[in-house]
Formats: sequence, C-alpha cells, structure tokens
Amino acid sequence: MTKDMKDIVALCKRRGFIFPASDIYGGLNGFWDYGPLGTELKNNLRDRWWKDMVLCPPLGPDGAPVEIVGVDSSIIQNPKCWEASGHVGGFNDPMVDCKESKKRYRADHVVVYWPKDGQGSGVAFDKDAEDAEIEKRLKKLTNKALADFDTAKLDQIDTAKFANIIGPDVKTPGTLTEPRQFNMMFHTFVGATSGDENKAYLRPETCAGIFLNFKNVLDSSRTRVPFGIAQIGKAFRNEVTPRNFIFRSREFEQMELEWFCEESEVPMWFDFWVDQRTRFWDAVGIPKSALHFLDVPKDELAHYSARTIDVEYAFPFAAPGYDELEGIAHRGNFDLTQHQQFSGQKLDYFDQATNSRFLPHVIEPSTGLTRGVLALLCQAYTPDESRPSGVYMNFTPAMAPKKAAILPLTAKEDHVPLAQKLYLELREDFAVDLDIKQNIGKRYARQDEIGTPYCFTVDNDTLADHTVTVRDRNTMAQERIHMDKVADYLKEKMK
Amino acid sequence: MTKDMKDIVALCKRRGFIFPASDIYGGLNGFWDYGPLGTELKNNLRDRWWKDMVLCPPLGPDGAPVEIVGVDSSIIQNPKCWEASGHVGGFNDPMVDCKESKKRYRADHVVVYWPKDGQGSGVAFDKDAEDAEIEKRLKKLTNKALADFDTAKLDQIDTAKFANIIGPDVKTPGTLTEPRQFNMMFHTFVGATSGDENKAYLRPETCAGIFLNFKNVLDSSRTRVPFGIAQIGKAFRNEVTPRNFIFRSREFEQMELEWFCEESEVPMWFDFWVDQRTRFWDAVGIPKSALHFLDVPKDELAHYSARTIDVEYAFPFAAPGYDELEGIAHRGNFDLTQHQQFSGQKLDYFDQATNSRFLPHVIEPSTGLTRGVLALLCQAYTPDESRPSGVYMNFTPAMAPKKAAILPLTAKEDHVPLAQKLYLELREDFAVDLDIKQNIGKRYARQDEIGTPYCFTVDNDTLADHTVTVRDRNTMAQERIHMDKVADYLKEKMK
Repeated sequence: MTKDMKDIVALCKRRGFIFPASDIYGGLNGFWDYGPLGTELKNNLRDRWWKDMVLCPPLGPDGAPVEIVGVDSSIIQNPKCWEASGHVGGFNDPMVDCKESKKRYRADHVVVYWPKDGQGSGVAFDKDAEDAEIEKRLKKLTNKALADFDTAKLDQIDTAKFANIIGPDVKTPGTLTEPRQFNMMFHTFVGATSGDENKAYLRPETCAGIFLNFKNVLDSSRTRVPFGIAQIGKAFRNEVTPRNFIFRSREFEQMELEWFCEESEVPMWFDFWVDQRTRFWDAVGIPKSALHFLDVPKDELAHYSARTIDVEYAFPFAAPGYDELEGIAHRGNFDLTQHQQFSGQKLDYFDQATNSRFLPHVIEPSTGLTRGVLALLCQAYTPDESRPSGVYMNFTPAMAPKKAAILPLTAKEDHVPLAQKLYLELREDFAVDLDIKQNIGKRYARQDEIGTPYCFTVDNDTLADHTVTVRDRNTMAQERIHMDKVADYLKEKMK
Repeated sequence: MTKDMKDIVALCKRRGFIFPASDIYGGLNGFWDYGPLGTELKNNLRDRWWKDMVLCPPLGPDGAPVEIVGVDSSIIQNPKCWEASGHVGGFNDPMVDCKESKKRYRADHVVVYWPKDGQGSGVAFDKDAEDAEIEKRLKKLTNKALADFDTAKLDQIDTAKFANIIGPDVKTPGTLTEPRQFNMMFHTFVGATSGDENKAYLRPETCAGIFLNFKNVLDSSRTRVPFGIAQIGKAFRNEVTPRNFIFRSREFEQMELEWFCEESEVPMWFDFWVDQRTRFWDAVGIPKSALHFLDVPKDELAHYSARTIDVEYAFPFAAPGYDELEGIAHRGNFDLTQHQQFSGQKLDYFDQATNSRFLPHVIEPSTGLTRGVLALLCQAYTPDESRPSGVYMNFTPAMAPKKAAILPLTAKEDHVPLAQKLYLELREDFAVDLDIKQNIGKRYARQDEIGTPYCFTVDNDTLADHTVTVRDRNTMAQERIHMDKVADYLKEKMK
C-alpha cells in the first residue's frame, strides 16, 4: 500500500482538513489554515497531550504521579531573551543564491552529483528530488547515468568548486553564490518607530517562554524539583524553502515539556520520557512500528545538548526513510545559565532537603502539534478500492474529528426527528455529526473520507423497535443496537 | 465592597495566574504570560465557548440546532487580505507626541481640562487618571479647583489651541505635536529580504481568517446559509498605550463567530445572538447585572456596520462605569464584498431553494478570550477579612482552574496514600490538586486564593470509616462524605 502526499493534500482540501492560507489570494508560501475537521483533529491531539502532561501526568519511577504545570507565554518577548538563547546571534542557515534563476537555497538542502570520472560539472538537486527526475536531468546535462556519480551536500563542498556546479534550476555551471548566513527569526517592531531599539522577534520555539517563567512558577506554585513545565503554542520560522505540506511551514504549533531535575538523575529521567512519549504516540494512533529512534551522533548535537533522541515517523515524503516528529533532548542547564547571566536575576533552585542551591538540568520532549497532525493524517490515510470513496481515514476513535455520524435513512419527516433526538443526546459527550440529506451510500462515503469510526442510521425499523444500524468504518460491517445503548457503545469504543 | 486592580494584579502574580512577559528582563510593555492557573482558567473559558459554538451550538428559532463549524487560520496571511479589509489603509489611531517628555499619546485617550473663566492654560490628563490626582495637579499648575474646569477630548480640539495646552507629563504648555496617523498592525517580512515586496502583517483580528475561508468551507462541508464559522486565536495590535493589565495588551486572544444569513433575517438573528451571548456570560459567572448593553449610536459605528451592541462589563478600572467585553456587530456583507473584489474570486452563495446567488450578510459576536479571563478574575475577586487569606476567588466551579483539592491532614504516611488514591481516581474527570505539605489552615487559604470550590481532607476518621471532610470555599462550611461519593458530588456541582 503506497501513500502519496499529493493524494493526502488533496483529501485535506476536499474534505476541509487543511487549506492553503489566503487561498483566494493565491496563498502565501509556508502558511496553512485548518478547516473545520482539521481544527477538531488538531484540538484532539492538543487536548490529549495536555491531559497526559498537565492534568494527568504519568506516574514516576516511585509510583507517585510526577508534577507538571502548564504555562502560556507571549509569542513576542523582550528581545534580550533571544540574545540569551543564542537565536539572535546563531539561529542562522547558510543560504546560497543562484544568480541566474534568482532562487535561494539552504546549503544543507542541496545535494551535488559529481561525475565519478572527474570529467564535467557537478549537478545540484534539491535533497528531496526523486530518482527518476534526477536520472533524467543528469542524462540530459551530462549524458551520464545516475550510477556514474558520487554525491555530496552543498554545505560540505569547498566554495572554490562552486564555479563547476550547475545549480538546481539552471543549465550552466557557476551561478551559485557563496553561502551567506540568514537569520530564521521573523522580526517586527514594538512601539511607534521601526528603529533597532524597537526591534522584537516572533518566537522561533515555545520553550524559551518556559525558561523565562521558571522563577515565577517556582515562586507562585508549590512545585519542587523534579518537576515539569509544559506549553503548547505557535512558533514562527522564516524558512527559506517551506516544504512537504505542513511538515516544514513558517507558522506552526509546538508542544514542549521542560523537565527540571538534578544532574545525577538525568539518565533515569531521559529514559523515562522516551518511554512515555512512545506510549503517547501509540495511544493516538502512531504505533512504535511506524517510528524510528535516532540517537543523534555526538558531532551532530546542538551545542547545548549532551544527548538527543529524534523520534522519527515514516512520513510518505521521506519513504523509505523517516523524518523528525519529536526531539527528546538533554539540554543540560544551558538555558537557565544563559538567562541568569543575561538577566542578572538569580534562577537557581534551593533544595531544602540538602540545603543546597543549583541550576537544574533539563530534559525536553519537544514535538510539533501541527507536525503531529500531519503524522495522524498520513497514518490514517488508507486507500481501499473496494469502497465508493476509494479511501478511508483510519483515525483512532479518540482522535477522529467526529466520533459518530447520525444519519436518518431518508429526509422524510419521521426519520429526521428521531435522528435529531439522538444527535442532541450524544453531542453533550461526543463530537457527532448530523447529516440529513443525500443518499445513504454517498453519506457513508463522506464519513469514510473524514474518518468517522461509527455511523448510526435511523430507518423504518427504528420507528418500530427503537433500534438503529451501526456501521463500522473499517470493516463496513453493520449491526443493530437499541438507541438507548448508543452512548454506552461509543463510550466503550473511545477507551 | 471595592475591588482594586492593583490587588487583583498582585494576586495574579502571587498565585501564578498572570505574569508580566519577560519578567526577568524587566518585562515588555503590553505583553503578558499566563502562569499555571491562568492557563487553566483561560483554557476553561476557551473550551466552554468552543463547546457552546461549535460542538453543541444553540437551538435556533425553529427548535433545530443551528450549524456552526470551526476554523484555525494563520496569524500571517497574504498582505492583500489587509488591503481588502481596509486595515493597511485605515487601521490608524491619531497620535500626538510630547516634544518635552518624549512620550506618545493616543489623541482620543487624552482629556483636556479648560478653565471655565478662559484664564490660563488647558491641562491634559490620561482619560483614566483618578480624580484625586487630577485635583492635585490642577491645583498646583493653575491654583484652581476641579469644579472650575470644563473637559474636552484632545482629538476634538482644534490643533491651533495645542499651544495653550500643558501635556500630561510636563509643566509648560505648547509641547504637544499635531496628531499623526499611526498604523496599529505589527509588520514583518516573509522571505529572504526586508523589502516592501516581502512585507506582511500579524493579524489585528481573527475574523479575516474566517472570511478568507468562506468559500473553502462551503466547498468542503455540507453547511448551508444560515450557518456560522467560529475561530479562537491570537491577534496583535501595536497599541501605543497598552493599559489596564490584560485589558488592552499588544498580544491577545479573540473568540469570534461570523454568522452568515440572508439580509432579511438579520434583525431576528441579531437579537438571537445578543440573547445567546448574554446566556453564555451568565453561565461562566458574569451575571447580566454586571453587564451593560450599549447600542452604539449611528454616528459612532464602524463604516461597515449597520448596528453594533457593545456588551460592557463593570471592570474595576472603569468604575463606576463599564468597558467593552464583547461587540456584536451587523457587518452587512462588507467583508465578502471586499475580498471578492480584491481577490477576483466569486464568493457568492448559491441558494438551491430559490435558485439565486447572493453575498450573505454577517452578524459577528466578537469577544476577547483574554479580556474574558480578566472579567472572570475581576468578578471572582472577593475580599473577606474574616478569613486568613483576606480574599477568595469566587469562580463558578466549571471555570475554576482546580475543581477540588485533595488534602491529607498530615504528611504522615497513613493519610498520604488514601489522598493519592482519591486524587488518581478524580483526576481522570476533574482538574484536581493534590497538596500534601504545610498546615491545613495555610493550605485552605491557598485554595481560597486560587478559587478552588471544594477541599477534600483525609484524616484519621478516613482510615476508620472512609469518609472525608468537604470544605466549601464560599461558606467555609464543612461536612463529611464517603470517599466513594466524592466523584458524584463534584459531578453534581459542575452542572
């Protein structure tokens, strides 16, 4: 079974999951809007993460529940925050421009194919280019076959050799400039003038808002180390090449936990959180078999991190590989150290038991809410030629935007009132759809495409014996149950 | 009983409802972070609005539930959107600068006191200045009493007279400049360069994202006019004088419904939504008696609006008056007309019943989520000298950040396990706090200040008969109930 991103993107638009932002104005590269069903799906994933983290945090190794509180900080913060975090100075990507095509590329996203025989120019491609396309262009430009080339990433090639590289969108070599640094933070100006003294940034990650509030949380709540602070919110990165639908967009949502603990306990808590996060993804419908755990090699770690595991998912665009869904990082006490230094405020923690002060270490499970939605969509997408819709969305019942559809068999007056009655009873506890018009086959097809796990149909028998048909999305099997049992039936299925 | 904003702001920081953003860096004017309890309070209000609008929309005048779907659109949209909406050209405030103090003021936020006898200068004050302060400064500068003055707003005074006005923060007349227009949208740049061709804006209101998606929603869902599209999300305004805590901040959250209907049905639906919104505020703890309904005079209406009712709340800073909590506006079909014209895309609705095409009219109940949180905080704040905390937060149980606290009477081992057991049972369905250490009086005081309606205390009797003490926040009365009945007790109280 192959899944094609084009089909998934098309279904998302057709059924109201995700639209290009400003669609009627031709869109805006890297920005997406969530339609009625996408918004509910995203809310379901958001609420589940919040429940697992903040409302019902897991039991710790000692059997007692761990302590986690939530915050919701501003997108725009005092710009000193981003000097301390290193983003003003260092959140840069090396970019190369093409003087001919006028396009700009991230140097680490361009792969150059060098002829093994050393004869002729290197040819550059986007790293996600497909083999067939590469083969075709290489043949045309060099008259050699794919097997005749070695590859290297552009950011690892000496710029002296750039004169002998044909850029990704041109036919002649020597049009690529040297790489230049490009800061990925969006900036704006707070106050009346657009001078440097008023420059501020849209946060490129939500975690900073947690570190900024570390002291305020300690002072106002009864939390003691070890404990966590969680946040869900938007973040912004001025990506030069947004790509892969909502995977790499310029405006996105993160779900981040900063877990504060003693340095000596880092290995234990690191393993604990990798395990917890794996359970979470499984519970929302991403089984461990669809994940890949990359223990990031030492020389590729961010400067502040002693260890990071990237939890990667089998996104279709990465096939046969994986791409990042979540990062679980040991950040040391880098952030608190930096903010303490730049703010001049004491951020150390006083431990009453040992009568000592220290800056806690941090373990950060950080995932994208919007990226998680994409994983749910990709995982759920199930082509099935045996049914009219040709596809169904196999969401877990708890994540499905609609848990059930209530369908009067006909729009005749005697079916509709009973269906409305059932809808009104169920909607207090479940997100349900009442869909009255159109033939029943088309309505089933629509519910398959939006991933509704159960359809309850009101027909003539319902008038006689108060039973309704339940249709199961995945098996398409039907059975009859009493109207009074529908709520319990759904409750059981949501567990 | 007087409520002072200073006390409310102090409690919010002390107990972890709301902190100044970037507090350790001295803050950033107009930006606020939500702490552990403020985040839960805000989520409760957000979820209640979403449930009332999207998951369980009200029954319409015909007894059938109305149809409303949700969207979640980008903060950054194609800038043409804001040309169409009029924000690029017109979202301006007239500002005056003071050449001496270097401060900037919104002209409509400055009130000038003119001597009735025409002798001497006018004296300018911020519109929220307190009488005592005004009286003192007038006496000092003019040696006259408050009763000797007439007042006028600065934006209604001929600029020729500015030479005879003493600005709000200086002692000599003639330092105020003529008013200048200042666009309140934050701007940024999307893409590699900061040129005008890459200029984009942070949305100043969420409703535009609804109009942009009107056609996509119609095409992808089964909605038919009349229906609504709802959205909750952040918006940004570069206010020159942020003020009154989170009431007028630069980054805030809105909850907006756009209700699309035929023009002939506007009066009916307008009344319908005013009624529904009043019920909503009552349900979350803002009774009608604390609200004031201002039918905005024709000459003060926004250019697109035929009628607007401002739902105003008795915020303490407005005492003895009110200030805006929600606006319910008939926007005509201004927005769809503008976007249709600027985008060149047909946005009209085809009505199958009448075989006609038209641009629906819109009724917009628009409120601030963050402003709603402020109303809940102000309404709940209840000074009470008879109790140790001196104050309690009288949230409705459904809005309270914590529904209950589970308190072992002592941290001795035999009380704690039972308390933990009760906590683990309850937390699946209710946001509950487990607070183990400190004497019980201090813990009750803390729960009073954070507005927890019920405290369940586990003591020696619990070991014997499995009953716990319930303490009611408002009455401080205590009774004993069986541990097995606690969940039902809470469920009943949440209704």
